Amino acid sequence: MTFKERLRQVQRERNSLLCIGLDPVIDKIPPHMQKTGEPIVAFNKHIIDSTSDIVCAYKFNLAFYETHGPAGIEALEESLEAAPSDVLLIGDGKRNDIGNSAEHYADMLFEGLEFDAVTVNPYMGTDSVEPFIRYPEKGAFILALTSNPGAKDFQKLKVGNYYLYEKVVQRAKKWNTRDNVGLVVGATYPHELAAIRKRAPDMPILLPGVGAQGGDLKKSVEHGCSKKKDLLLINVGRSVIYANNVRDTALELQTLINTYRNQMN
Amino acid sequence: MTFKERLRQVQRERNSLLCIGLDPVIDKIPPHMQKTGEPIVAFNKHIIDSTSDIVCAYKFNLAFYETHGPAGIEALEESLEAAPSDVLLIGDGKRNDIGNSAEHYADMLFEGLEFDAVTVNPYMGTDSVEPFIRYPEKGAFILALTSNPGAKDFQKLKVGNYYLYEKVVQRAKKWNTRDNVGLVVGATYPHELAAIRKRAPDMPILLPGVGAQGGDLKKSVEHGCSKKKDLLLINVGRSVIYANNVRDTALELQTLINTYRNQMN
Repeated sequence: MTFKERLRQVQRERNSLLCIGLDPVIDKIPPHMQKTGEPIVAFNKHIIDSTSDIVCAYKFNLAFYETHGPAGIEALEESLEAAPSDVLLIGDGKRNDIGNSAEHYADMLFEGLEFDAVTVNPYMGTDSVEPFIRYPEKGAFILALTSNPGAKDFQKLKVGNYYLYEKVVQRAKKWNTRDNVGLVVGATYPHELAAIRKRAPDMPILLPGVGAQGGDLKKSVEHGCSKKKDLLLINVGRSVIYANNVRDTALELQTLINTYRNQMN
Repeated sequence: MTFKERLRQVQRERNSLLCIGLDPVIDKIPPHMQKTGEPIVAFNKHIIDSTSDIVCAYKFNLAFYETHGPAGIEALEESLEAAPSDVLLIGDGKRNDIGNSAEHYADMLFEGLEFDAVTVNPYMGTDSVEPFIRYPEKGAFILALTSNPGAKDFQKLKVGNYYLYEKVVQRAKKWNTRDNVGLVVGATYPHELAAIRKRAPDMPILLPGVGAQGGDLKKSVEHGCSKKKDLLLINVGRSVIYANNVRDTALELQTLINTYRNQMN
């Protein structure tokens, strides 16, 4: 199965486009989990146990683990083991390097940590991306238009008749010979999301920026879903993982997303 | 002291623009070091002991360490401790993420691993770079024009009258309010290197691509040095670290670089 087929399957089975971002900050983890001696693992296991039947994926931003040194990587490894095997695990490292170095990153992420997908920064071009797209069953989400304010500095520069992020989308489509390349598009740009979906009707889109960053959920669903009402992964982090009732908050989101999804023509 | 002042000082004291890239691949490490149980540390210590009086910096590409999981990070930490305190240590991770995630990377690299400088991918713009440039005494080398073939895919796209990498250089100059921002420019583009040096006469340039990648050393020195014949860091990896005689090879390079340097007007 290609990565896209795997994504379609889990989204259908769970009836969910929801992806939860497991980016724990130690200070925000409840005291009783702090006492376990492995607060990050305890916290992640709690979120996973509460939500794994209603999400299609979990996204782990590597920055939140690497900042703790070797112990952080161990906590990441343990957290990954807690997830059911059919939910997709995304290693959000935004890595990129020249070919022979990128191979080491790909090896770490896909072989070592066994992620099902990763995020990749496109700035260094084809040979820097190639090591991440060699595995048909594993996905590579290319940063196209990110959710942060700085996205405008380069991504929205005009290259001829196109914005730079559109050139990235064009290139990502060429890289997608194995049906395993996706795009990262921020929910903070709904208009651009619609245009990108039109240009890439059949590629997975990983969408951060809903929740704490202020992206509109309804527009995200309407503009981001493929015609089959799937292939969109709506990532929500802080507003779910620190909620008083994690499961209720995630369920509410799943339901809301599916309501908007069902309203689509 | 700002990062630039620190760089000037070590380049003057060691009379060297040479930076050695410590990117060890296990299979290439000699058998007697394999037997130590810590081959990466033994290998790096050997290189550092053989060269630390004739280099201005060591560059550690994080991919080569992270690929070994937590043990790889421990090997990196031990290797860093083996270097003399006045030689600059560069964490080549090409990281980039939205502001609050990038803060964790900056924390890991500057506070945790205590690198003196890092490499940063500019694609996500100002807020993604800002956490890396908050420390005046620590450097951030922004990827401008990289040494790999894929550099042409995006970096050499025309944005109005400029190439994208020139827009990055313009922006990096604006980010340089603390005298601690540098640029990464590949030795494989000598003509562009000259143009970038003209545009940024007084910023440090980290230059990979000499040696295994085929960049011309003489042109690199002539086109990459500031008017004071410094602020260029010429990174050499494979062709030194796997040489039969590491010190002789590094010394030869240092001498050759200084010959070209002295010939400059």
